[in-house]
Amino acid sequence: MGKARLEAFSDGVFAVAITLLVLDLHLSGRGTLTNQLWAEWPQYAAYVVSFMVIGIIWVNHHGLVEKLRRVDRWTLFLNLLLLMFVVLIPFPTSVVAQYLRHGGWNAKVAVAFYNGVMEAMGLAFSGMYAWAGRREELLHESVDPAQHRSSLRQFGIGAAAYPVLVLVAFLNPAVALVGDFVLAVFYVFDWTAARVTGPASEGVE
Amino acid sequence: MGKARLEAFSDGVFAVAITLLVLDLHLSGRGTLTNQLWAEWPQYAAYVVSFMVIGIIWVNHHGLVEKLRRVDRWTLFLNLLLLMFVVLIPFPTSVVAQYLRHGGWNAKVAVAFYNGVMEAMGLAFSGMYAWAGRREELLHESVDPAQHRSSLRQFGIGAAAYPVLVLVAFLNPAVALVGDFVLAVFYVFDWTAARVTGPASEGVE
Amino acid sequence: MGKARLEAFSDGVFAVAITLLVLDLHLSGRGTLTNQLWAEWPQYAAYVVSFMVIGIIWVNHHGLVEKLRRVDRWTLFLNLLLLMFVVLIPFPTSVVAQYLRHGGWNAKVAVAFYNGVMEAMGLAFSGMYAWAGRREELLHESVDPAQHRSSLRQFGIGAAAYPVLVLVAFLNPAVALVGDFVLAVFYVFDWTAARVTGPASEGVE
Amino acid sequence: MGKARLEAFSDGVFAVAITLLVLDLHLSGRGTLTNQLWAEWPQYAAYVVSFMVIGIIWVNHHGLVEKLRRVDRWTLFLNLLLLMFVVLIPFPTSVVAQYLRHGGWNAKVAVAFYNGVMEAMGLAFSGMYAWAGRREELLHESVDPAQHRSSLRQFGIGAAAYPVLVLVAFLNPAVALVGDFVLAVFYVFDWTAARVTGPASEGVE
Repeated sequence: MGKARLEAFSDGVFAVAITLLVLDLHLSGRGTLTNQLWAEWPQYAAYVVSFMVIGIIWVNHHGLVEKLRRVDRWTLFLNLLLLMFVVLIPFPTSVVAQYLRHGGWNAKVAVAFYNGVMEAMGLAFSGMYAWAGRREELLHESVDPAQHRSSLRQFGIGAAAYPVLVLVAFLNPAVALVGDFVLAVFYVFDWTAARVTGPASEGVE
Repeated sequence: MGKARLEAFSDGVFAVAITLLVLDLHLSGRGTLTNQLWAEWPQYAAYVVSFMVIGIIWVNHHGLVEKLRRVDRWTLFLNLLLLMFVVLIPFPTSVVAQYLRHGGWNAKVAVAFYNGVMEAMGLAFSGMYAWAGRREELLHESVDPAQHRSSLRQFGIGAAAYPVLVLVAFLNPAVALVGDFVLAVFYVFDWTAARVTGPASEGVE
Repeated sequence: MGKARLEAFSDGVFAVAITLLVLDLHLSGRGTLTNQLWAEWPQYAAYVVSFMVIGIIWVNHHGLVEKLRRVDRWTLFLNLLLLMFVVLIPFPTSVVAQYLRHGGWNAKVAVAFYNGVMEAMGLAFSGMYAWAGRREELLHESVDPAQHRSSLRQFGIGAAAYPVLVLVAFLNPAVALVGDFVLAVFYVFDWTAARVTGPASEGVE
Repeated sequence: MGKARLEAFSDGVFAVAITLLVLDLHLSGRGTLTNQLWAEWPQYAAYVVSFMVIGIIWVNHHGLVEKLRRVDRWTLFLNLLLLMFVVLIPFPTSVVAQYLRHGGWNAKVAVAFYNGVMEAMGLAFSGMYAWAGRREELLHESVDPAQHRSSLRQFGIGAAAYPVLVLVAFLNPAVALVGDFVLAVFYVFDWTAARVTGPASEGVE
């Protein structure tokens, strides 16, 4: 199977998953509309963070696929595994939106669960990334395998952040959610930088 | 990251967001079916206006992306921000559909909220547009930066309409919604005109 | 705007609209699962008919777009209008699924409403088709404008069927739904035939 | 109609259908969040299995379409029939997720219904596959019709597994679901293997 297909299908899945996040925004129906709209702030926070997270994984996914010359069955399987967790994201997002304001143990579990899913997604991404580094014939000629592997270490640092946020969630769930937001902003500015290098990115598909 | 990717992903997001609008159409289950179908007119009105708005942003988004030669990380971030508000549109649409008929303060807040989200979306679009104008190396050679910036002023006029409609919403929400519809029709005929210029638009992707 | 964009966006909208049909299938929760599954037959019937209808409009939409050389603002507007009714289809489908078994007046109104939406969609399609025929510079050189216009007459015959089915719905809604199914099958076999002509359809996009 | 269109539309439908699976994951709202999250394991199991099944059909669908040189109206019809069952999958998945834990007759019916839909989908796929084998002018020159037909026999073995799982469901629904999982893993490793053959899969669309 050509990698163009992998990209087209994955693009579609990312686009649908990111859009389904809006389905978690709904009014409680209790009190005035003004109050209902204000009361929904945990839903808005969860929406913003998850939107950015999915957006960033999408950017990194393309960064990885661009480096590939061909796709083997393990890449395919790891890609399906990654998408399985990406598609899942609206669910923990909804859990956070529902339980953050409850406070107490449930709010902690909600944010910990959220970061657990993020970690699983990060591991699937790292797995796909590592697999391509091991099997150098999968990489495009222009990609230096050594550099590819060193990028993986950077991802590793990112992947280490989510277990920390799981722990933070049990101390203070709101702080953990802010951590998710900061991590997302960090990724936007760090990871995309390397990929914007003029002519090569004019991108005639 | 190539701009082709940006377009493919954005297209997917626009297509899903515009289609999710139909999920807000549902029957109350009270009274005869004929009555229920008639009683839903605010839902239909909201559906038509939001459908046209998303359709038009999509057209303008392409108009902008076509002018770009390359994409930097800020463009990417601003594009994600724009999509974040586009994907949000089914939510204020649903709020309007639910509360317009209630009348009173809630109807006013609903339509004001709707136009507030539209304004945020318009600002994100203008921001992305302005950024490309500032960093002229992002623009395609065939694009005149001065003309690009003057188009921005036109967008600015459009972006000024939504705050006005927020105010109108507090006077008469139905009139504000008609204003949204008129604005949408205006954009269909004004903005697309410039982009239809024969051979260049035969578009073999 | 290039017609490739129009196609990509429209494809996305068709794909999402056809998939959302599954959201109307849900269990009543009353009685054994076996009984619930059997009791849902009107939902299945509505699902099958609507799936085929959207599939066929999609086929015909491509048949039309392939004939175009370029796209003007009216085409764009008419295309948005067509998509607005395509995206709507899950709603009347859901109305039929809910009310067909009720029998009586509500079942008649449900099926009549369904066919009314189909007619509106058909008219939007015919409008887009007719517009291209009037403005011959929009058509590809290989297309004979006279033949294009005669095809329109055939569509006209199709478009006349839905108002008849609206009337039939008030006599016997089940018969009208069978008519929708027959009409869909008829379109599958009639309209696609002309478009399968060897080399030209190898379609390297 | 070119086969590129068929692929683009089918890709979109697969991407939306696989993403809609997440909509079946929701909390019961009863008890602590921890308990609710654990209690949902049948939903997770159903999600994982259905995700893999749709992913695999998507891979095989492309394997088939790549072998085609052109598309006739029967192929189109059979493709719509296949997609009709693919889009349906979130529904039996939801039925399994709801009824597996109930145990008793309902759990058996749920898993049997699930495997029945899978069988229908498999038959539609086999039908599309067989049709291309019969009409050799549809196949690409590089495809050996005899080999194509022998692959069909392999699919036949796969298609025979689902009726067996329907029967198993009535003995032990959990075992049948494990069977679905094993079958999915088997397909991931068996069917994609043949399609990864270097240069040909670099896939510049």
